[in-house]
Amino acid sequence: EKIKSRKPRWSVRASEMSKKTFNPIRAIVDTMKAKPNPNKPMIALSIGDPTVFGNLPTDDEVTRAMKEAIDSNKYNGYAPSIGYQSSREVIAKFYTCPEAPLEAKDVILTSGCSQAIELALSVLANPGQNILIPRPGFSLYKTLALSLGVEVKLYNLIPEKSWEIDLKHMESLVDDKTACIIVNNPSNPCGSVFSKKHLQKIVAVASRQCVPILADEIYGDMVFEYGAFQGLAQLSTNVPVLSCGGLAKRWLVPGWRMGWILIHDRKEIFGKEIREGLVRLSQRILGPCTIVQGALDHLINRTPQHFYDNTINFIKSNADLCYITLSAVPGLCPVRPAGAMYLMVGIDMEHFPEFESDVDFTERMISEQSVFCLPATCFEYPNFFRIVLTVPEEMMVEACRRIREFCQEHYQGGEATQDLECDK
Amino acid sequence: EKIKSRKPRWSVRASEMSKKTFNPIRAIVDTMKAKPNPNKPMIALSIGDPTVFGNLPTDDEVTRAMKEAIDSNKYNGYAPSIGYQSSREVIAKFYTCPEAPLEAKDVILTSGCSQAIELALSVLANPGQNILIPRPGFSLYKTLALSLGVEVKLYNLIPEKSWEIDLKHMESLVDDKTACIIVNNPSNPCGSVFSKKHLQKIVAVASRQCVPILADEIYGDMVFEYGAFQGLAQLSTNVPVLSCGGLAKRWLVPGWRMGWILIHDRKEIFGKEIREGLVRLSQRILGPCTIVQGALDHLINRTPQHFYDNTINFIKSNADLCYITLSAVPGLCPVRPAGAMYLMVGIDMEHFPEFESDVDFTERMISEQSVFCLPATCFEYPNFFRIVLTVPEEMMVEACRRIREFCQEHYQGGEATQDLECDK
Ligand SMILES: Cc1ncc(COP(=O)(O)O)c(C=O)c1O
Ligand SMILES: Cc1ncc(COP(=O)(O)O)c(C=O)c1O
Repeated sequence: EKIKSRKPRWSVRASEMSKKTFNPIRAIVDTMKAKPNPNKPMIALSIGDPTVFGNLPTDDEVTRAMKEAIDSNKYNGYAPSIGYQSSREVIAKFYTCPEAPLEAKDVILTSGCSQAIELALSVLANPGQNILIPRPGFSLYKTLALSLGVEVKLYNLIPEKSWEIDLKHMESLVDDKTACIIVNNPSNPCGSVFSKKHLQKIVAVASRQCVPILADEIYGDMVFEYGAFQGLAQLSTNVPVLSCGGLAKRWLVPGWRMGWILIHDRKEIFGKEIREGLVRLSQRILGPCTIVQGALDHLINRTPQHFYDNTINFIKSNADLCYITLSAVPGLCPVRPAGAMYLMVGIDMEHFPEFESDVDFTERMISEQSVFCLPATCFEYPNFFRIVLTVPEEMMVEACRRIREFCQEHYQGGEATQDLECDK
Repeated sequence: EKIKSRKPRWSVRASEMSKKTFNPIRAIVDTMKAKPNPNKPMIALSIGDPTVFGNLPTDDEVTRAMKEAIDSNKYNGYAPSIGYQSSREVIAKFYTCPEAPLEAKDVILTSGCSQAIELALSVLANPGQNILIPRPGFSLYKTLALSLGVEVKLYNLIPEKSWEIDLKHMESLVDDKTACIIVNNPSNPCGSVFSKKHLQKIVAVASRQCVPILADEIYGDMVFEYGAFQGLAQLSTNVPVLSCGGLAKRWLVPGWRMGWILIHDRKEIFGKEIREGLVRLSQRILGPCTIVQGALDHLINRTPQHFYDNTINFIKSNADLCYITLSAVPGLCPVRPAGAMYLMVGIDMEHFPEFESDVDFTERMISEQSVFCLPATCFEYPNFFRIVLTVPEEMMVEACRRIREFCQEHYQGGEATQDLECDK
């Protein structure tokens, strides 16, 4: 046997990967020590979970589909790691269209859209490569990339253009090591919805630069104007696209952890290699809960249109209310959203000299008004804060009232400059 | 702007990680081109899924718990990424004991035991380190380790000693870079159950070498002799243990993807660092399905004892039947199992000169007898095959009959030597 020079002693350290896995929202929120004002009940406009207040229950058909799946006793065993063939067919049929046809083989079921993004990034990018992500943008992209040793480069969104991408800036960031561009539409945190034309230009950049796109379309079809959502893959004739989605938002069941990747690869640029890579990666933890998989058919095909419409109308009505109220508040610059469930508000920091940053600003809003909004530093976008629009209307009204009061109390200086600046 | 020397062209390659993610069972099984004998209906003794034949349904209380969780409408939103506090409490209460007390904070809910193992490995091991895993052993350990860039070293199990660990061999493998030892008890593929004494010796090695243990106890309590299962962590006074488990096997719902890590760290050797690392890693894809989380309380506390007993009695009866039948077959050396749901059978290859390997042997068993057993090469253990014991009894009987017939047809040479060798 070999000679041991080792003198064992205990020293168990957490891995590099676990240390690199970093959730900026947690990091920022956990340092916010503010306690709510004890005289005012807390209103949290911070959590992207439409179910917390109970005002947006999922549809009865959705829960019925689950109970049927349970009673059938057919969905207790292991499914293939990418999901049942029949369930993948359901998703393929639901999303297929002539310009971007989908079959079951193009669908991979995952544990939430989060795992869809994780698998997509894991198959496309090696450590040392980079990906392009939006600023402001959903924090998970960076969390996952860094945990995989993949660098992120942030391309700018332009608030004055309803958060369209600064395409020149985006294209300038592409280099030899760019593994993919993440496009999130409709957007968290912006609530923006890209026009067909803008999406075409995005695809053109990817095509010119030969970089695949990861389209995060978890808020797909959640748009205020009927028909305004345009899937990105439908506009691509050559750029390969992994479109990530799931049940979380549109069906209002984020806890159920059902997501998917739709593989669009009309020119076979991904080819067998990426498809097989995704299958192999899916075998690490196996797919999502089989009961939810078994429920997909009824859940998707029996949910009545008015359920979707109700959700959208509710969010739109809150968006209007919030936008209109806050537009009249000196020092604030809300940007009108067109979908998803968020609204971004610019803070004219010059007029709030008391506060050092959006983090400071939102912290004080908690301690004085018991209103909790996420500072947009969480999305790499200082001097803004994000409002979640799925709260009950009376809460929205009261929150806006308190935000106005807060701003009125702290606003300093004239209104003129600020009006010009933020193009109200 | 910087100058681009890059001439874009399409070349999208799957990542190194996806290529390193390798499931040996798939690799071996997919090369087995054998078609079943068309005159005999196929009997698959290959899949570790107790639900496939419908003879082992889960308990009514289990499905009732799920439907109640759905109807409550309380479990549709996001849970904390490590699971609801209340659900973690349920698991803590179920597994706590004086020698190894558990609270909610010591429990992390995961998407199946597979993700429990993935998180545990990800937090303990860095690329370039190594882990010790059993041979024969469950293939996922190696799959996950290699995909993380972690090396595996295989320690031997001794079939003649009911698959106890060759402790000397195991200890000799430990080096400076050993991040953990995986101990799987009861075992897949062996069906073995370690005695308290043997487990104490395992813990003693880990203690001497100062290496933490990942205990895969997904088959915990699935033992033929009442009370024979002994949790590993209860025997440790200092060695930190991550015990991985889940609903898959004992509650017969592997598709539901509910697993957990129990953190045992009585000397605070893992400390804050490992706990926080696990939490951070759990945020990458968030936890398991909230409906199953919500069902845990009733599911675990209302399932009647006779449900567990029935499963065990059924498996034990198949195990006896299979062991006794195959013991009488010249050229075969079954090892009597004591738990889980598997039985390993040695092949006396000398007496089957027609076949090159266990893969060859099992392949021919498919084409001639339509019986599919996994060659133990899948578990890094050539010259054995594994039988799954959860199939309906009449299938078990017929499969054993056909295996006997197959061996009788191919057996060459006297019986004397073989009898001595395999200690029947
Ligand atoms: C833009 C975006 N993508 C992905 C996700 C994750 O979705 P899931 O809960 O299905 O993992 C979210 C959740 O808030 C999101 O806002
Ligand atoms: C020893 C062992 N560990 C872990 C697992 C994975 O369990 P789960 O289905 O909960 O991921 C299995 C599944 O067969 C197993 O045999």
